[in-house]
This record gives sequence, C-alpha cells and structure tokens, in this order.
Amino acid sequence: MQSKGYAVLEASKPLVPFTFSRRDLRPGDVALSVSYAGICHSDIHQAREEWGPALFPMVPGHEIAGIVTSVGSNVTKFKIGDRIGVGVFIDSCRECSSCKSGLEQYCLQGMTGTYNNYERDGKTLAQGGYADSFIVDQDYAASIPDNLDLAGVAPLLCAGITLFSPLKNWGAGPGKKVGVIGLGGLGHMGLKFSAALGAHTTVFSHSPSKEQDARKMGANDFVVTSNPKELSKLDRDFDLILNTVSADMDLTPYLQLLKLDGTLVLIGLPINPYTINTPVLLAQRRSISGSMIGGIKEVQEMLDFCGKHNIVSEVEVVDPEYINQAYERTISSDVKYRFVIDAKKF
Amino acid sequence: MQSKGYAVLEASKPLVPFTFSRRDLRPGDVALSVSYAGICHSDIHQAREEWGPALFPMVPGHEIAGIVTSVGSNVTKFKIGDRIGVGVFIDSCRECSSCKSGLEQYCLQGMTGTYNNYERDGKTLAQGGYADSFIVDQDYAASIPDNLDLAGVAPLLCAGITLFSPLKNWGAGPGKKVGVIGLGGLGHMGLKFSAALGAHTTVFSHSPSKEQDARKMGANDFVVTSNPKELSKLDRDFDLILNTVSADMDLTPYLQLLKLDGTLVLIGLPINPYTINTPVLLAQRRSISGSMIGGIKEVQEMLDFCGKHNIVSEVEVVDPEYINQAYERTISSDVKYRFVIDAKKF
Repeated sequence: MQSKGYAVLEASKPLVPFTFSRRDLRPGDVALSVSYAGICHSDIHQAREEWGPALFPMVPGHEIAGIVTSVGSNVTKFKIGDRIGVGVFIDSCRECSSCKSGLEQYCLQGMTGTYNNYERDGKTLAQGGYADSFIVDQDYAASIPDNLDLAGVAPLLCAGITLFSPLKNWGAGPGKKVGVIGLGGLGHMGLKFSAALGAHTTVFSHSPSKEQDARKMGANDFVVTSNPKELSKLDRDFDLILNTVSADMDLTPYLQLLKLDGTLVLIGLPINPYTINTPVLLAQRRSISGSMIGGIKEVQEMLDFCGKHNIVSEVEVVDPEYINQAYERTISSDVKYRFVIDAKKF
Repeated sequence: MQSKGYAVLEASKPLVPFTFSRRDLRPGDVALSVSYAGICHSDIHQAREEWGPALFPMVPGHEIAGIVTSVGSNVTKFKIGDRIGVGVFIDSCRECSSCKSGLEQYCLQGMTGTYNNYERDGKTLAQGGYADSFIVDQDYAASIPDNLDLAGVAPLLCAGITLFSPLKNWGAGPGKKVGVIGLGGLGHMGLKFSAALGAHTTVFSHSPSKEQDARKMGANDFVVTSNPKELSKLDRDFDLILNTVSADMDLTPYLQLLKLDGTLVLIGLPINPYTINTPVLLAQRRSISGSMIGGIKEVQEMLDFCGKHNIVSEVEVVDPEYINQAYERTISSDVKYRFVIDAKKF
C-alpha cells in the first residue's frame, strides 16, 4: 500500500513530504486511514539520533488514531469503519511471560517499535504514523470509544498509557495521595487519570502560570517547585509520585515526601543518570521504580476508562507543514499540551 | 542499676572498661543479664562519628541476647529466667501508623536508638549492650527459643532482622529467585533465611574462597563478582536482590538481572550516593528500594523461624578486652561472620 506522509531523510534534517510503500495486508492485519498523529518528544530524540543510531528514511509517529479502511481475512477484532488506535509498538514475540500476561511492552525478546525499527522479519523497515494510512496486526491495535474526539485521543496511545499504566499498577485510587511532577504532555495526562481514579492529586510544576489549568484538570494541590523550600513544608504522606520530567533533577526532596512503602516512578528518560541518596530510601522503605508505556490490554482498558470519564489529551492540532516548527516548540515546552498532526492533510 | 561494660569516651578513641548507671526499673521494664552482645559495623561508624556527631560516653551494642533477672510490676510478657533479645531500638512513639502496624523502625516520630541517643524523656542517655546488664521496656524485647545458642542469636537482633524483614516483605519463598550481594555479617544471614524460606538463592561475592561456606549455608549458586562479565552471563530472572555491601559500587549489572517487577533492596549505607541508570529501571518495571531492620513483631517472627529451622549467626566469640581488635578486623572484613562479645566477662 502506498502511503503519503512526512519523513526525516537523514539524522537531524527537517521533516519533508515523503511517499512510501507499506507492507501488503496480511490475513491478521487491518489498514486504517490515519486521522491524527501525535508528536511525542521521543519522535524528536529518534529523528535527531539523540538516543543512538537510527534508521532512515524515518516516518516518525507512534500516537495514531484512525479509521479502519480494510481488514485481512482472519480479522475478527475490527471491521471497516471502526475507530482504532495504535501506539508505540506493532508487534512482540507473543510467547514470553510478559507477552502472555498482556505486558507486551516488556517482551523479553524486545517489542517491535512502530518506527525506527525493523519488523520481526528482520528486513521490513517499520514506518510510523505521520502519514495518511497505516497497517497493523489486529492484536496490536485498540478500539476507541465513540464519544471521544479523535484528535485528543491520539496522544493517549503513548503519553496517556505511559501515565495510566503506573497509576493502575501502583494502585492510585480513593484514599491514595498521588503526585505528578511536571505538567506537560505526559504530566497533564497523569493528572487527569489520577483525579478520575479518585486519588488526591498534587501537581509539582516550576510554572506558576499552569496552576489554573491544573485545577481545571482536577488537581487538588499545586506546588511551585522553583523554590525547593516549598517541598520541605509538605506532609510526607504521598503514596505515589510520578516523575514525568526528563531534565536533570534532585529526586531526594520528592522521595522525602513519600510515606512508608511509597514509590517514586520514573517515566522520563533523562540523558544523565540520577544520583540516589540511600538513607531516604531506607528511612521509610521507599522505592524508586521505572515504568514504560503499557500493554495492549491496558491500552484498551485506558481507552474504555477515557470513554467513561470523557478524558482526552489537551491538544493543538497542526497541519503537516507545521511539524518542524512544532518540534522546536515541543523542545521548548511551548505547547498546551500536545501537538497533534491533522493526518487527513498529508 | 549499676552496669559494667565498655565505652568510647571520646570520638574515635579505643573502648575502655566503664561503669555506669542505668535507669531504675519501671513498671513495664525488664532487667536482664547480658549473655552476648554482637559487634555491628554501625557500632564502629557511630563510635568514630562517621555518621555525624555522636553522644559520649558511648556504650555501643544493639545486638543483645540475655536472661531476665527482674521484672517490673506491670510486666506480663516475660518472667525471670526467660531468654530475651533486644535490638536496634528500645522505644518509639507507639501511636503513629508505623508503630501501630508493628513497624516501629519506621516510627514517624523517630525510633529511640538503643545507644547514642536520648530516651524519649529527652535527657536520659541510652547506653547499649556492651555491658553485663540491660534494662528495657517489655514491648521492645523478644523471646528467644530454647534450642538456639545465645551467642549465635545475638547478631540476629540487628544483622538477622535486617535481612529477614525485606525477604518477608518482598515475598521470598518457593518459586522465587533471590540474590544476596556480599557474604559478611549481613549477607550470610540473608543467605540462611532465603534458603530456609525455600527460595532459590544466589550469592554474589568478590571472594572465591567463600564458596564452600556459602554452599554449606544453603546457596544454590555462587557468583564471583571480581569479573563483571560473569554477571552479564546470568539469566535475567531474579525476583529480589538484597545488597548488603556498603562500598561504592555500580548497581546497573545487578539491576539487569532482575525480571519484570523485580526489586533490588539496599540495606547497607554507603558514604557516597549511588548513580542510577534510568533505562534499566524502565525496561522491566524494576525497583530499587531501601529497608531498615524490622519491627518487634517481625523480630519475634524471625526468632521463632530461627527456632524452627535451627538458624543462628556464624560467630566468633571474643572477650571484652578484644573489642578494639575486633573493630579493626570487622573493618577489614576479617571475621566469619560476626564478632560476639562474651558479656559474662565484663
């Protein structure tokens, strides 16, 4: 199948219009017309080889919301016209303990990324969602509830699930106190989910100007972190803190806010390692953990939850020609809260 | 009550014979003649002010096994002649959520250390177990099973519970794979407990000479860590790794051995912070946690477990005059596996 989209032809070069072939529809595949594709900071890291050597030409995009246009002969999960989403991976080994328990993101053989990656045949270069069409195995897509706006849904497939999964895994809900560090593309999803799950939710942000938005999205408390003294004044009773910030930072003041058996979950990937103060972990049997996106079962659970609670990402919809500018604005955190490309205009 | 023991009169000075008064027996107190007192590396850290300013004169010692010699009027838990143990703390607030759930070591007002600490009246200087007698509130002592050798029991009150508590908390048992880094005073207790709990247990040690001992104590595998390549050859299927080493080290090769949702627990307190590589945590939703001794309920559970499985610490029993030499040998890890002072000789 021919696809029209935008690609990076060479590391760090601007994205340009690009026409390419996708694999033919296999019996288990569905084809979709992409409605919206979110811009994730990790698209930029990969396009610029900031995470190591990458594969070019690269069509980025792993926050894909669209409508099924054709289905393979074995497809039972979706039919033409269905609204579906595709996220950060399009395949996995399907046999390991992680895959079997619906946590394909932790596939022991490695998940197959949506782009910048060869498919499991080892030779087909996977191309992402900045395009008018997409093909995916039915087992690696999820159904989008009818009441949700597709533009706001696209970022749920990466930013959304990245926050939803740890909130569920660490038991966010009524009676729990949750902190979200950073109110950007990731953080605002964490806030919306945590509040909707019924947890008391505090946002930690260096931008006082974001307080109003945070309150609107459900924050019970908003703490400006530019003055570290503000943190030391708080009660040390958090069950869970999600760190969505990728910049270098001192985690100790946040670890100190955790109660007995509390957990700080790292979600962003900073370039430098963290320095960890041991006594603060021992003091209240605290933990630092990592979490990475979510499995397909969890993605579906999240989308159903969003349908029920009417949750989508806050987005700025842009035309394909604006992608390079959107990249610059994403880098400088100048977006409320996620750019989404109108894929009908590719 | 008069006690005869050994004390540090001034930071970093050798220990010398010392006679001092303990508080009078209160209605809830028991007095004991100390049979054995273990030497813990933290005694040395405090005696030398390596953990900050300390209180002198200091009678160290928080691994105390002895026999009840008198009881206060309200004591119901013990009677004269009972064998009891006292560990790292002798009091706590008794009212916070940690105390109420039997985790006094995490008392939100701070536990009252056995020495180098004022009692909760704010003025009585607590003195530890390097002495012929001791006084403690009945609620902060535990009963020692009859079949256990008291010398080998003493180190259970700190080294033992420090390993038993995290093994229980993180579910070590049949079907689980546990690693213990370091085979010293702490590590050999971790090995014995993990094996007795039914977990598959691997010891990581830089001393090939310790393999025979490790196997005798129940190790299923023994990995010599002087060659880091040995670690990368291992299966990445550990549920739990306990790090008993206080020296600076790179945790990443151990974190990589953890399976999905596995935990590395820090027990030692290194002087420098650790550097934590974020991707290795995200990759399999791994955690780094801290754990600190255990509560009185857990201490009793451990002692009962030891009675049932006939577990004690491996000890070298020394006379009081040998304490300063024992300190030097503890620092150079020249002990198999814990020094215990014969307190009947004070």
